[in-house]
Order: sequence, then C-alpha cells, then structure tokens
Amino acid sequence: MTTQQTEASTIHAYLGQLPNSIEVIEPGTQTIRYSHDAATAKTVPAAQTEGPAVVLPASAADVQEAVRLAAELGVTVVPRGAGSGLSGGATARVNQVVISTEKLNRIIEVSPLDEVAVVEPGIINAELNKYLEPYGLFYAPDPASFDISSIGGNIATNAGGLRCAKYGVTRESILSLDVVLADGSLITVGHRSIKGVTGLDLTSLFVGSEGILGIVVSATVRLRPIPVARKTVSAFFDTTAQGTEGLAAITLSPVRPAAIEFFDTPSLHNIDAHSGTALRERGGALILIELDGFGIGDQAAALATALTAAGGRVTVEADDDGVRLWELRRSGRGLPQDKWYIGEDIAVPKSQLGKVYAAFPALEARFGVDISAVSHAGDGNLHPLITLDKTPDDGPNPPAALQEAATELVKVALSLGGTVTGEHGVGSIKKEWAALELSQRSRELQHAIKAAIDPQQLLNPGKAI
Amino acid sequence: MTTQQTEASTIHAYLGQLPNSIEVIEPGTQTIRYSHDAATAKTVPAAQTEGPAVVLPASAADVQEAVRLAAELGVTVVPRGAGSGLSGGATARVNQVVISTEKLNRIIEVSPLDEVAVVEPGIINAELNKYLEPYGLFYAPDPASFDISSIGGNIATNAGGLRCAKYGVTRESILSLDVVLADGSLITVGHRSIKGVTGLDLTSLFVGSEGILGIVVSATVRLRPIPVARKTVSAFFDTTAQGTEGLAAITLSPVRPAAIEFFDTPSLHNIDAHSGTALRERGGALILIELDGFGIGDQAAALATALTAAGGRVTVEADDDGVRLWELRRSGRGLPQDKWYIGEDIAVPKSQLGKVYAAFPALEARFGVDISAVSHAGDGNLHPLITLDKTPDDGPNPPAALQEAATELVKVALSLGGTVTGEHGVGSIKKEWAALELSQRSRELQHAIKAAIDPQQLLNPGKAI
Repeated sequence: MTTQQTEASTIHAYLGQLPNSIEVIEPGTQTIRYSHDAATAKTVPAAQTEGPAVVLPASAADVQEAVRLAAELGVTVVPRGAGSGLSGGATARVNQVVISTEKLNRIIEVSPLDEVAVVEPGIINAELNKYLEPYGLFYAPDPASFDISSIGGNIATNAGGLRCAKYGVTRESILSLDVVLADGSLITVGHRSIKGVTGLDLTSLFVGSEGILGIVVSATVRLRPIPVARKTVSAFFDTTAQGTEGLAAITLSPVRPAAIEFFDTPSLHNIDAHSGTALRERGGALILIELDGFGIGDQAAALATALTAAGGRVTVEADDDGVRLWELRRSGRGLPQDKWYIGEDIAVPKSQLGKVYAAFPALEARFGVDISAVSHAGDGNLHPLITLDKTPDDGPNPPAALQEAATELVKVALSLGGTVTGEHGVGSIKKEWAALELSQRSRELQHAIKAAIDPQQLLNPGKAI
Repeated sequence: MTTQQTEASTIHAYLGQLPNSIEVIEPGTQTIRYSHDAATAKTVPAAQTEGPAVVLPASAADVQEAVRLAAELGVTVVPRGAGSGLSGGATARVNQVVISTEKLNRIIEVSPLDEVAVVEPGIINAELNKYLEPYGLFYAPDPASFDISSIGGNIATNAGGLRCAKYGVTRESILSLDVVLADGSLITVGHRSIKGVTGLDLTSLFVGSEGILGIVVSATVRLRPIPVARKTVSAFFDTTAQGTEGLAAITLSPVRPAAIEFFDTPSLHNIDAHSGTALRERGGALILIELDGFGIGDQAAALATALTAAGGRVTVEADDDGVRLWELRRSGRGLPQDKWYIGEDIAVPKSQLGKVYAAFPALEARFGVDISAVSHAGDGNLHPLITLDKTPDDGPNPPAALQEAATELVKVALSLGGTVTGEHGVGSIKKEWAALELSQRSRELQHAIKAAIDPQQLLNPGKAI
C-alpha cells in the first residue's frame, strides 16, 4: 500500500471506532468545504473530489473521545470553528480529521451579577450578543466577521475588531476555559472573577493558540453593560496625510472612543464606486468614530475641538447617518473580483500609521500594484488591500509582483516596530512572514511549549508557529 | 565536604567568575534582608547570620551574564524586585543567588502618541506615575503597595489593585517584554501596538510567572490619559449583608466605577480604633467608590439612585474628604501587632461576595478567631484579616487554629467558584492552597511548560507551581 492508502485506512479505522453517538461526515465531496477557511477557499483545486473526515461532537465528552482516539491511532486533528478565518488556520488535508465545534453551540448561562456568560465554542458572536441584549449586556470583542464567526474561533485567533482600543481584544474578555488537551483529558483554566493568579496564566496561552494546544469546549466570557449612549462622529480631511494628523490629535485629547476607523483616499473612492455614495465629495480621508458612555455630549465636544484644530471637518452624525457609515465601513468596499488582490492585517505603533500610508506610493510604483487601507486606528491595525489588474497573459495564479508587494509592505510594518498580523493570526499562510518578525530563540520557545503540551504533534500540526 | 559546603564553594566560584563590572553583595548579615519578602520576613530565624549572595545588574547584558554563569555552574537563581511581595515569591535560601533588579530602574521612553512607556523592571510603580503626570498620562495598575513595589515585581505577580475592574490587572497594561531566559539568552515578546497575534502569547505567559520562566529586563507598558474628572462617592449601610446587596445594585446599574472598595462592620471598627475616626457612627458597612471620566455628575446621580434604592446612605464626598477616605482604605486598619494574624487574598465570582462574608461567624466560632475583610468588590477580591488573641501559653509560632481557619476560609472561596489568590500570587506560602484549587492535570501542564522553558529548573525553583 502507498503511504496515502495507509493513511486512508487509518482514517477509516478511526471513523469505525468512534462511538456511534458522535456524528461524523465521511470524507468525500461533501467535506471539501471543511478543507479550507475563508482565506484558503480559492486555493482548493477545482479537480479536488474529496475533503477530510469531519467529526461533529455535541458535548465535551464527545470531543474528549474523538481526540483520545486520534491520539491512539496517530491521526492528526484540525480543530475548526465556523471556518471564517483569514489565515488558513483551519485548513485541513484529506487524511486529517476535522473536529468541528459547530454543534457545540449552546449558551449555558448568563449571569448579570457576575457579568459573565458561559458558552460553548460554536455559538456565533452575533447570536451571543443578540441573546444578551434583553439583559442589557454585551460581549465586547467585535471582529468584522461577527455575523458569521464563532466565539471558539474568536478565542483561537484572539480576534480583534473595531472596539479593541477601548474594550480590549478577545483575550481581555475571556475569564476561564474548559479545554480538551491532546491526550483527551479535560482541564479548566482561569477564574470566574476578574482577578485570579493561581499558577501560570494558561487561559491567555490558549487564547490565540490557533488550535495547536487544545480544543476549547466551554468559555466563561466577560460581559459589560450596554452603554447608556452611543454617538457617531465623522471627521473629513483633505488628504490621507492630514487625516493621520487627526488621529494623533485624538490620542492627545482626553477622549477615548469605542472605535476609531480611518479611511484613506483610495478607500473612500472604492466605497463610492462600489456603494454609490459620494464620500470623496466630503474629503480625501475620513476618521469615523464611535463614542459611548456617560457625558457623550462633552466627549463629542472635546473631540470636535481636537479634530477641528487638526484641520478636520467634524460632524456629529444623526443616528441614521451613523448607522449607514458603519455599514459602509463593514461592507462598503466590496472585494475587487475583477482584479488580483491580497488583504493584509499588519499593525504598527499607532504613531507610525502615517508612515505606513506614506510608504504606499513607492510600493505602488515599484510593483505596479494599487494599495488602499482602512485601519482600526486606535490600535494601529491596518487592513491594506493590494490589487493588481488582470491581463490576458496571466495564468491561473496571481503574478509574483502581488505577493512581493505584500511582503515588502509587511517589512515596512516591521521596520516601524510593527507586526505581520494584528488580529487574523498566522495560520498556514503567514508563517514565512512570522519568521521575519520573531527571533529564532523566540520561535524555539514557542515550539518547546507546543511540544510540552502536545508531544505527539497531534493538534493542527504546522500551523501558527 | 558536606553538601552545604559544596554549595557554598560553588557560590564562591560563581561570584569569583562574574565580571567585576557587575555589582555583588557577598553572602552575610547584610544580605539577610534579601532572603525574604514582606510575607516571609517574620519567618527568618533570629539566629540567622547569613543571607544569599546578591547580584545587582545594571543592564540587560549584566542579567544575561549573571544567568548564563549560574546555568553553567548549576546555581539556582531567585529573581527579586522590590521585595514587597506577599506570598514568599522572592524568598531565597543561603546557597542561592538573588538577582535583584533594583539598579535596573530607568524610564527609557515615554511616548504620548503611542500611549506607552518603556521602563526597566526596578522602577517603583508610584515613581513611574509621578514621572508621567506632566504628560497627562498614567499607568493604571495600582496595587496597594504602589509606593514601594516595582513594575518588575508587579509583572511577576500580575499584580492587581483597586482600579482593576475598570482598567484591568497588570497583564492588561503590559504590551511587550524583554526577557532573559534561563540559558542567558534575551528575547522580545509582544508588540508595541494594542493588537498583535504572531504566535503564542508569550507576554501573558511571562506576566504572573513569579520569576520561574525568565527575568524581565524591560517592559513596554500601556498608558492612559488622566481622567478629566474624578469623584469619590460613599454609601453606608446598616449591616455587612445589606452592604453586599448594595454591591449587586452597582453591578446592575450602568455605571462602572474606577474602584469599588467594600468594608464590613469589623473593618470599620478596626479603622476607627486605629485611626481615631468615627466611621461606625455612619453605618455598619461602607462601599467606597471612585468615579472618573466624562459625565461624572450623571454617573454619580445614576449610582446614587441605585445605591439609595438598595438601602444605602449615599454621599458625594468633597474632594478633601474623598482623599481622606482613600487614605483610610490604604492604611487605616494598621496591622494588629499585638495579635496573631494572617492576611488572605481570596477572590470569588462577585455575586458570591455576600456568601463569603456570611461564612465568617461560623468560622470565628469554630476556630476562636476574629475575621474581617476589605474587598476590591468590583472584581470579587477579598482581603480577609484573620486574628487570634495572644495568650501567655503561646510559643514562638501562632497556634494551629489560625492556619486552620485560614485554610477553611480558602475552601469556602473555592466552594463558591473562587480562587486562593486574587492578586498576590502563590509564591512559596500558598502552594498547598493552590493544590486545592488546580487539578492534577492542570498542575502537570504547568510543570511541563516550566520544564520546556527552564529545563535545568534554574529560576526560582519550588515557587508558584
């Protein structure tokens, strides 16, 4: 038998030995969608006829059993949330087993007095918040994917979002986890209180570990009261560079908005072209701000003073207009299906945002690409979109110049003290970039920790580190 | 030679081989103060004539050299901040080397536009904040020891404080660290931006690791703008139980104070006796609140409505009175030098605070002790003070009933879903309690991580885990 046949027979044995009570999907065309996430969907060959085996546990005990058996048979496991990831963290090969948490989607408890919810990993972020609304509470981390991404996936990637500068990333909202380890054992880490320092902080270690250290089967998440008021403020500037001066003015003011989104000139143009708006008529750069909490009038006034002094044209938006602007932020640009493109997720110390934008023209000239970027400016996190026009001479894959431009932009971020990934994770597609950022000794340490927790290299091998 | 002599000669060789440029203090009476922290000072025998060898590096390179040589000679190292710890984490034996960070106390950089400071670990928390004041910025974590504890020690214990419910514990303010590992190598972990998810979150792993994984030689800490306004609100209740109902009313209100401190009846009595105040005339329990930020009048009004409805007598304090009340919180109780006592640091889900207080009378009756507690109520963290009257029959050590009562109180916290240590750490004196809280598998995992990062068990052996 070939190695591949051996592996196929091992997978067959694995599925055969799993208790009948655990739902599975045999490998086939129907599991191809489990072989990729949102980032790697387009890399699946058209000719592929089979995906990985898929296990759909409905309880923590099911997950334990599925992992224990995988360890026994030496089958590698790819944990999977909703598959909305943007770095290939859930990409699975044919002879791997995907353990999907989609059926583990219960909200187990909401405690207004402890300000926590206990949830299973498969619950969708937006569904949790919808459920919490009657309690007057919300779960703060809001990745742009909140309508489709699961809390488990958010935990695995330490997902960010728009409100992080004020409310923190996912890690700051995770108090405690139940985790199935690579030997099938179940441990609880963390505390239901804000404070708790018994031993090493394993909770933070599992958050953002992209499925390589364990599978989260339950999470105690921190909740917050829905703010007494929210208000959208816009500030238009003549140029991208002037807009980044406006960002500095916010930092030097006493106001700390819930969200600060920055749009450069080409991003505004893209939105107008895609959504039929006329934002470019209002200016060449936009800072879109959400204020919340007490004293919102005073907050808006202090902010308007700071932004006006920096050359901005400030509008406290009517509620409807505010909603429309946030919709444009989330989906106004569309994706340029008629062009080659790469979306990035770099972050820099926020004082350096202006320098990143200033670096675009030289890269555009050098590689023949177009670059625009919307930023979560409060935490220095840019999402550059690099595009390249298609030509009749192109093959099935994008020209090398596209990836070269992306790598060069990553190097710009690193040279400014930044990082290759602010909130999406390393997954399978950013490992080379991660190696540009982390030292050899730092990577050794990460591998040593992985080996200490998963000595068989069973869980999501080859990802994240 | 005896083992002890062998060890002494190894220490001698170690000190002899260190470069002359690195300051050392030879073992002797002058280093006894380095053999304990604030918790274990009273356990040093009066007859002790010698402390550990002490190394006082003045640069990261010095720390690397001191650790590298220790690894070569197999000398174990106890990293030490300001020695103000409350769990024996910096306790050192005679034949160990203490590496103190007290000379590594520079503020390297303050960046208002990045809202960060870069500091060495020896800087005292209060000194950093004094330095930041002209910038209009502050470093939020405020352990009660802020006047004497170092940022490095705060990082090692993931120190809490009064403002954690709003601003987070130390971990939430640490963005990046330079760390010397047990082999003397130096790595940088984390990011200067709020976001950054390249690989495992080693920053959070080092925070709170009590010196067993590495020695922090530089930290990039998050700063925040000093709030535009601060206001102290007090609410007196007739009984401790009614006071804890008031705490629930705060949670259900939309107001999130910077600090929420709770005093039970005996704590108010203790303060009056020690400080000559008359708090007991105002009530039998006190919730002391600091509000900050925008809309402070509206915040105070909403809070007063909630607390009054819960039976509280609410006062928005004049500024001077507010300052005085916070001084009483920090040092008003004194310590009962004429009694045996143990101070605890338990935390529970905050809805359970009332049940912890309700458990005191039965424990008092059972063990013949007195128990009072002030709490950081916003994060469920109690500091019970358990006292026992001295009698002429007592020996040099406290009667067993004192420790038994303390352990029983820890078990009460655990039974309510709590933890043995909210913010002080496990150190050397809470390891048995930690074993009551953490499962066998969880402790195995912690030891596996320790072994992966420090295979020689060189750094602070026997502490924390």
